[in-house]
Amino acid sequence: MNSMKDLGCELYEFAESLWPLNRSLTGEGVRETLLTIKAILPNLKIIEVPTGTKVFDWNVPKEWVISDAYIITPEGEKICHFGTNNLHVVGYSTPYKGKLSLEELQDHLHSLPDQPDAIPYVTSYYAPRWGFCITEEKRRTLKTGEYEVFIDSQLIDGNLNYGELIITGDTKEEIFLSTYICHPSMANNELSGPTVTTFLAKWLTELPNRKYTYRIIFIPETIGSLTYLSKNLEILKDRVKAGFNITCIGDERSYSFVPSRQCNSLSDKVARHVLKWVDPEFKEYSWRDRGSDERQYCSPGIDLPVASIMRTKYGAYPEYHTSLDKLGTVVTGTGLLGGFNVIKSAIEALEKNLTPRATVLGEPNMGKRGLYPTLSQKGIYQDVRLMMDVLTYSDGTQSMLEIAEKCDQPISQIQEICKTLFDFQLISFSD
Amino acid sequence: MNSMKDLGCELYEFAESLWPLNRSLTGEGVRETLLTIKAILPNLKIIEVPTGTKVFDWNVPKEWVISDAYIITPEGEKICHFGTNNLHVVGYSTPYKGKLSLEELQDHLHSLPDQPDAIPYVTSYYAPRWGFCITEEKRRTLKTGEYEVFIDSQLIDGNLNYGELIITGDTKEEIFLSTYICHPSMANNELSGPTVTTFLAKWLTELPNRKYTYRIIFIPETIGSLTYLSKNLEILKDRVKAGFNITCIGDERSYSFVPSRQCNSLSDKVARHVLKWVDPEFKEYSWRDRGSDERQYCSPGIDLPVASIMRTKYGAYPEYHTSLDKLGTVVTGTGLLGGFNVIKSAIEALEKNLTPRATVLGEPNMGKRGLYPTLSQKGIYQDVRLMMDVLTYSDGTQSMLEIAEKCDQPISQIQEICKTLFDFQLISFSD
Amino acid sequence: MNSMKDLGCELYEFAESLWPLNRSLTGEGVRETLLTIKAILPNLKIIEVPTGTKVFDWNVPKEWVISDAYIITPEGEKICHFGTNNLHVVGYSTPYKGKLSLEELQDHLHSLPDQPDAIPYVTSYYAPRWGFCITEEKRRTLKTGEYEVFIDSQLIDGNLNYGELIITGDTKEEIFLSTYICHPSMANNELSGPTVTTFLAKWLTELPNRKYTYRIIFIPETIGSLTYLSKNLEILKDRVKAGFNITCIGDERSYSFVPSRQCNSLSDKVARHVLKWVDPEFKEYSWRDRGSDERQYCSPGIDLPVASIMRTKYGAYPEYHTSLDKLGTVVTGTGLLGGFNVIKSAIEALEKNLTPRATVLGEPNMGKRGLYPTLSQKGIYQDVRLMMDVLTYSDGTQSMLEIAEKCDQPISQIQEICKTLFDFQLISFSD
Repeated sequence: MNSMKDLGCELYEFAESLWPLNRSLTGEGVRETLLTIKAILPNLKIIEVPTGTKVFDWNVPKEWVISDAYIITPEGEKICHFGTNNLHVVGYSTPYKGKLSLEELQDHLHSLPDQPDAIPYVTSYYAPRWGFCITEEKRRTLKTGEYEVFIDSQLIDGNLNYGELIITGDTKEEIFLSTYICHPSMANNELSGPTVTTFLAKWLTELPNRKYTYRIIFIPETIGSLTYLSKNLEILKDRVKAGFNITCIGDERSYSFVPSRQCNSLSDKVARHVLKWVDPEFKEYSWRDRGSDERQYCSPGIDLPVASIMRTKYGAYPEYHTSLDKLGTVVTGTGLLGGFNVIKSAIEALEKNLTPRATVLGEPNMGKRGLYPTLSQKGIYQDVRLMMDVLTYSDGTQSMLEIAEKCDQPISQIQEICKTLFDFQLISFSD
Repeated sequence: MNSMKDLGCELYEFAESLWPLNRSLTGEGVRETLLTIKAILPNLKIIEVPTGTKVFDWNVPKEWVISDAYIITPEGEKICHFGTNNLHVVGYSTPYKGKLSLEELQDHLHSLPDQPDAIPYVTSYYAPRWGFCITEEKRRTLKTGEYEVFIDSQLIDGNLNYGELIITGDTKEEIFLSTYICHPSMANNELSGPTVTTFLAKWLTELPNRKYTYRIIFIPETIGSLTYLSKNLEILKDRVKAGFNITCIGDERSYSFVPSRQCNSLSDKVARHVLKWVDPEFKEYSWRDRGSDERQYCSPGIDLPVASIMRTKYGAYPEYHTSLDKLGTVVTGTGLLGGFNVIKSAIEALEKNLTPRATVLGEPNMGKRGLYPTLSQKGIYQDVRLMMDVLTYSDGTQSMLEIAEKCDQPISQIQEICKTLFDFQLISFSD
Repeated sequence: MNSMKDLGCELYEFAESLWPLNRSLTGEGVRETLLTIKAILPNLKIIEVPTGTKVFDWNVPKEWVISDAYIITPEGEKICHFGTNNLHVVGYSTPYKGKLSLEELQDHLHSLPDQPDAIPYVTSYYAPRWGFCITEEKRRTLKTGEYEVFIDSQLIDGNLNYGELIITGDTKEEIFLSTYICHPSMANNELSGPTVTTFLAKWLTELPNRKYTYRIIFIPETIGSLTYLSKNLEILKDRVKAGFNITCIGDERSYSFVPSRQCNSLSDKVARHVLKWVDPEFKEYSWRDRGSDERQYCSPGIDLPVASIMRTKYGAYPEYHTSLDKLGTVVTGTGLLGGFNVIKSAIEALEKNLTPRATVLGEPNMGKRGLYPTLSQKGIYQDVRLMMDVLTYSDGTQSMLEIAEKCDQPISQIQEICKTLFDFQLISFSD
């Protein structure tokens, strides 16, 4: 097995280790998740923000503590047991203990008629209610009678937790990576996100040098990104040159992309370029198809250049937000590795995206440097054409990314050629 | 019958009342037409400009007075009788009384070989001559012999007349509407124009408030628009933000559009937007297809943003500029109402085309305001997506019209959503 | 025979007169070629630049003197005789006299397996070696045995020569024409270039007046253009408004175009316009397809607006850079004349490309000037529409070239209409 295959396995195993933890907006599951990540990234800071803290138009909610929950049918069967699958309980369910008729119970049950074998993922963070999620198949078998409901939960004053890792580079300019850690046991949306992000952070930490500083956060979705923005807005606006929201990055079905609100930020340009060379069939959505934390990062007045590079987008695959979004069937090591690599490529493209300028007027004499055949005959020009194209576009006004687009070649190849030209002192660089 | 159907009838009846008046560039028919309009719009000012007045490169022509005109055939039949159809006499025909052979007469006859049952519409405003217009069918029956020709007309020093109505609004910025009243008995080109314009003016007058001031003129084509421009150029250049030339607005066959010379003025953008939502198949012509008073309004150095919203364009339907352009067959109440409504929609779009700016950083908490479901489950986002899209584009740089285009929705719907968001203090407006 | 046919013959005969001269980067053949051109253009200055002169990143090479060269086969046949076809010897071959086995000889032979009847064109200007070019057919007949090789050549300190002709105009602004004179006996690439350029220069000299000054050079490719640039860079950057590299301009197969590096310079716009009206099927290449002296003229920091108008582009026809690129088969009088005319049209378009501005507000009264029918009836507007279109675009912001594009008409027709409008004082001109 080569090291790439190894990395696919490692990613998959890490996702498996996160699977059983009971994540929500807040609570013990979030903290356990962050500690599992910190085991790989020792410099991860785990931050807590108290319940009730004002966050723009919102307030940090209470912390949800849940020990157990289930229903006993009239036949005495224990169903919807939280211990079996944490999706069975509506997120942030209030405590309840009581007996109900089937009719009364139905108001508290959630299932998907179109996906009879799936337990849906349902939450009620900001309005107090309780409920259970159940497969449609099971629900149809429920008989009239008295049901005993038990939810041992609490909503307490506590904290919202998130993780932040700053990896310093040669400049204060930042690349921003964000992923979320608030969904219970689902694989593509969400474990692929923190998994790939953790290993990208590990790779970045191990790089001998970096041009950019990296700001990487693991947050609960929406309230987490709003909280992070409210605490760091000025610094983010000042420093972030590009950023990606990392989610749905672990299946093998496709590659896709949601641009930032600007649609043509550096993040967008790099993402489109890298995706095109990984998968010419990648799907570009519009900003109107957004649906994750980019909604906050790109909102008016915040305006960060945050794009989403994904495998198959949230909402675009049938298992999304159900118990069917599983490791093994939806998310695989190969899928995670593909996702990891495409974002790694985007980061590499950004790191080396300098603007070359020819040092010599007119075409240089490439032959005397051994860069060009000295015997001139029909057809030879084709072989060195790409190098000459890079030189002709090295006018100090266009970055390697723009040159790569003009030459219709991957930026990695343009960067390799630029390295050669730089070594021969035929170009210099500016930012 | 609902009120919309009522309005279609009212429009049609008003056009009928204008039909018999003998309009030309100048003269009694024009004044009667303006008085008929003034009966609906009491504040209409009727202005007179004396013959000989210098108007840019032109001079206001003499006033044409015609009492009667006809031809007596060798068989004693009275043909081409002005009293039967005012199209029979070439507009601005000089007086004539005499006897001619058929051969001599032919030089003064105008007919359309391709449309044998149509009397063509012919004028000679600036070169003195006389002539008759006749159907090709009738012309073919004329036999050799002596014809008695009688034209009782005069070209006298008099006035060019036009009507002007200013309806003040909250600002001095103006919307400019222009239509023409110089064609004799023809329905789409021209009675649809003054008819729809009269009722748009009536509707505007009755509005409880208006952002814009409306400048509405009823003029003879070309010399009238040149005259109006020469008297009001500075004020027009200073104040007019958008404008429409209103013609060919009463048939049911199609919707069409000629842009202003700029091609992308506010008038053009609004017209394209509104037409697209009324009829996705609407026909957009180019500026090179112009042919009415926009030729003057948009000419170099004048440069007003005047576009033409039409049903079927002049020149694009076979009955154009002939006696076949009739009420009932070409123009209908439904056709006039459709034309009225599309220009009304354009005006409404302009009136409310503000630029929203979100008042809150990040997405607001819509749930606590009852604008968003508090139970979060698969698929719910779609229901509130348009409101969230309007919010995300409310960055203070784009008007509702631009937001409507980005959201691919009619501006009326965007304006409704903006009203809700404004009522909840989630957006503020700038112009 | 009309004069256009005459000119085709003249062009063809001039190309024939250049055919036998042994051109290379330097040497007697170049000087003879320049003197043959000077016989048509007496003001041509022939300039010499000594061997070793530093030219940007290059040095002017030694002068190549060759008297004779051939191979004697084991059977005593004299093959690859320079006297028979100067393509037989690799350009800049070093002197050699000796006996070799067939195997040793093979390393010095060049042929084209895919074009068995063609002698390829091969050079080695900057690395000392010797070699022969031979048809693949002949090469296959060579038998084992001892071959006698004889090359009587010298590389001496001498000069690089080029020709320069300045034809002054009313302004110091320049149109720049460049063609090359370094290829031995090949017709489309290269004799069509100096042939057409010579006769364009003759035509320009004979014009009674010119707006622009013309700078026309006949140079060896690459080192010649670099040399010319290094001696004239500031003046070129300051004065050249448009320019064309003239090559492959004599066959009848197609018209084609390589834009300047800017892609949208005045040269590019004029070339595209003129080509479209000569041949709507003309082929536009991208800057990445460049391959002649525009590589130097447009390089970063030099940035001249030099485009290439061609018949069939170098590399795009099978005979290119072989002995099959012949007068008569590839290049014809008709082909040369077509090439001459299209560049002439481009120059004429540039000479008269003024910006009109209407002198009258509103449309002028065309009827009183006899420019418009005084009888107004259905359909007449079409006849004068183009003149009215030119007037409507005469707003002082767009040149005739832009107006021609908007009106979808050849600029020559727009220029004719502008002349009429100017004569009637309806427009004035600015540059």
